[in-house]
Amino acid sequence: MINSITHFLSQSAKGMKRSAIREILKLLQRPGMISFAGGLPASETFPVEDLKKIAVEVLEKESHIALQYGTTEGDPLLRKMIAERHKRQGINVGIENIVITTGSQQALDLIARIFIDHGDYVLCGLPSYLGGINAFLSYGAKLKGIPLDDNGMIPEELEKVVVNLKDLGRKLKLIYIIPDFQNPAGITLTESRRIKIIEIARKYDLLIVEDSPYREIRFEGEQQQLTFGLDNSGRVITLCTFSKIFAPGFRVGWVLAQPIILEKIVLAKQTADLCTSAFVQRVLARYLEKGLLEINLPKTIALYRERRNLMLECFERFMPKDVKWTKPEGGLFLFVTLPEKINASSLLTKAIENNVAFVEGSSFFCNNQGHNTMRINFSFSSREEIENGVERLAKVISDEMNNVR
Amino acid sequence: MINSITHFLSQSAKGMKRSAIREILKLLQRPGMISFAGGLPASETFPVEDLKKIAVEVLEKESHIALQYGTTEGDPLLRKMIAERHKRQGINVGIENIVITTGSQQALDLIARIFIDHGDYVLCGLPSYLGGINAFLSYGAKLKGIPLDDNGMIPEELEKVVVNLKDLGRKLKLIYIIPDFQNPAGITLTESRRIKIIEIARKYDLLIVEDSPYREIRFEGEQQQLTFGLDNSGRVITLCTFSKIFAPGFRVGWVLAQPIILEKIVLAKQTADLCTSAFVQRVLARYLEKGLLEINLPKTIALYRERRNLMLECFERFMPKDVKWTKPEGGLFLFVTLPEKINASSLLTKAIENNVAFVEGSSFFCNNQGHNTMRINFSFSSREEIENGVERLAKVISDEMNNVR
Repeated sequence: MINSITHFLSQSAKGMKRSAIREILKLLQRPGMISFAGGLPASETFPVEDLKKIAVEVLEKESHIALQYGTTEGDPLLRKMIAERHKRQGINVGIENIVITTGSQQALDLIARIFIDHGDYVLCGLPSYLGGINAFLSYGAKLKGIPLDDNGMIPEELEKVVVNLKDLGRKLKLIYIIPDFQNPAGITLTESRRIKIIEIARKYDLLIVEDSPYREIRFEGEQQQLTFGLDNSGRVITLCTFSKIFAPGFRVGWVLAQPIILEKIVLAKQTADLCTSAFVQRVLARYLEKGLLEINLPKTIALYRERRNLMLECFERFMPKDVKWTKPEGGLFLFVTLPEKINASSLLTKAIENNVAFVEGSSFFCNNQGHNTMRINFSFSSREEIENGVERLAKVISDEMNNVR
Repeated sequence: MINSITHFLSQSAKGMKRSAIREILKLLQRPGMISFAGGLPASETFPVEDLKKIAVEVLEKESHIALQYGTTEGDPLLRKMIAERHKRQGINVGIENIVITTGSQQALDLIARIFIDHGDYVLCGLPSYLGGINAFLSYGAKLKGIPLDDNGMIPEELEKVVVNLKDLGRKLKLIYIIPDFQNPAGITLTESRRIKIIEIARKYDLLIVEDSPYREIRFEGEQQQLTFGLDNSGRVITLCTFSKIFAPGFRVGWVLAQPIILEKIVLAKQTADLCTSAFVQRVLARYLEKGLLEINLPKTIALYRERRNLMLECFERFMPKDVKWTKPEGGLFLFVTLPEKINASSLLTKAIENNVAFVEGSSFFCNNQGHNTMRINFSFSSREEIENGVERLAKVISDEMNNVR
């Protein structure tokens, strides 16, 4: 029996790392565990009764479409519903600007596939979404991190890095941004900075990948326009998903971009999985057509607002002095900064022993920073779990702070 | 506005070609068109009533699982049901040998991703499934075609090519086979040849990718064991799918392999799409658990047998002398060989003008052969469509034969 496959592996496979988040998700199974680790939406927000009706209707009336192969671009009805929704939100796009993907993660993968050759540079925030980083890395990209402040990625720092890399003769292609309630940092990029980043992309001939899963989960303050909507150069490729505003179990996302870009994404998707499930696409299309997303989404936002508020209260109540955290206006996460001397990785081991979990912030830094940071999810846990979980976590942190003193 | 993205594209994207099949699928939309082109299952075989009940049950009782993110490996209940089904068919595997993919196409893509570096060789049948060929090509593989006869891939020819490539210092990794009712040729690999090909893989240290979507769609003759079941060296990676035995609209396939191989496939899948839709997986798991596949599958097979018989009758009745075709014992396709002087590509244009479509056989040859061959699907069309479609097609072929005389 074969006992090693190392000599068969591609260079890319040799470099593959397990995703810290996906690994930690498994811990959710253990009884008694309170996990702030995953980015899981609350099950209570899933529109179960609506879906029961729609699933039956779709099977009754259009099973010949819903159970058959679909086109690679995606269900035309779903694409139409999405385009119309963007229009209502002030972005003038049509079905030709929309391609459906098997979750946003597939879109990240397809974008990396069509643009990245080994050694090409991608510029991304410090920190940035792990799944994005891993998609780019798996195609051999080199990542260069750009610092963020409270207003998001700093354009001047971005330009400095671009100029520097160009001077060194490096091949730059993409700027990767997560502008709204950034995963993991919870920060939102201001409109004036979005415009500056678009200008930099034009000036230095780069594309912008805008990863936008959380924009509509806003608790307060004014909704930002998609970066896509601020651009008229065709350089912004925007990734959206139903995972956070509807349910992740359908695995449906979409790419919003110019047709000349989507054409290549479609070609890549043909090889990747032919098409996304026609069944879940058609159910979702009918759900949108009935206007149910607009009815259900405010309830989801209200629940998450309540959980964020409680989470912030508990942090105030339990956390030792010298621990700092963000107060996000939306999204699913707090980002926590511990004293410099604390290593979140060894803290995680102790936290898990005490039945509370988070994700180490360092996983989100492409430059090995962030050893003293953690990402905390507040969407998934109940009131009781948030209170007990933060208390447990604060205890573990206090103990660790006392130990390494 | 940006009007070219060529300078941003990766090498792989520059080489991407539209899939002939996916493009032709779009023609299905035109009214009056009779298409023998796609590999579409018959809508009549979709278990609509069963699914209506199960979808509602799953949403009622386990929406917190079905609408949430799942593990990358796949729904444990579905993996268990699949492993048990393999056991009932005489293959002793457990859940650790099964990973769920977003259709078989994703499995082909993930396998190419983890094993293929630019310039690595993959050996495949002449002809072979286009989606497999394209997956390997998109990662920079070089393909070397091995001739088939009525018993499938010829092991002696395979060994000759292996030795020759090794002598030339080439890096060989995979043998790609479609052993049962091969797409497109409809040929089945005999058991003794499967064993010989396994021996060649052991002797020259290669892996075998067994693509097996059609094995259970058998109209007559004896069911072959999976190549996986004949191997005890751990070198066979088998791809199966629910697309042909259940419905393609769910996009659920699975890989059957040793855990050390699946581990890398799971890592690649994390980046590709995180996980396959938990909803369709759970519905499918309950469908299997209730034994409904075993009840419905014989009806599907009976329908396809009837359609194959009718298709063969119509070919006998309408086709001009000098046209040859296979009589497959199962699967979804006839493979047709026209006289040498006929080019199936120009024939296709004329066929489409006459509202009948097929796929050019040359798309399935990695070495530019097969210009005078076509793949004809018999699973999707009604009795009337088969009769009219073959008559139309025969007329187009006759005209062409007269023209180029």
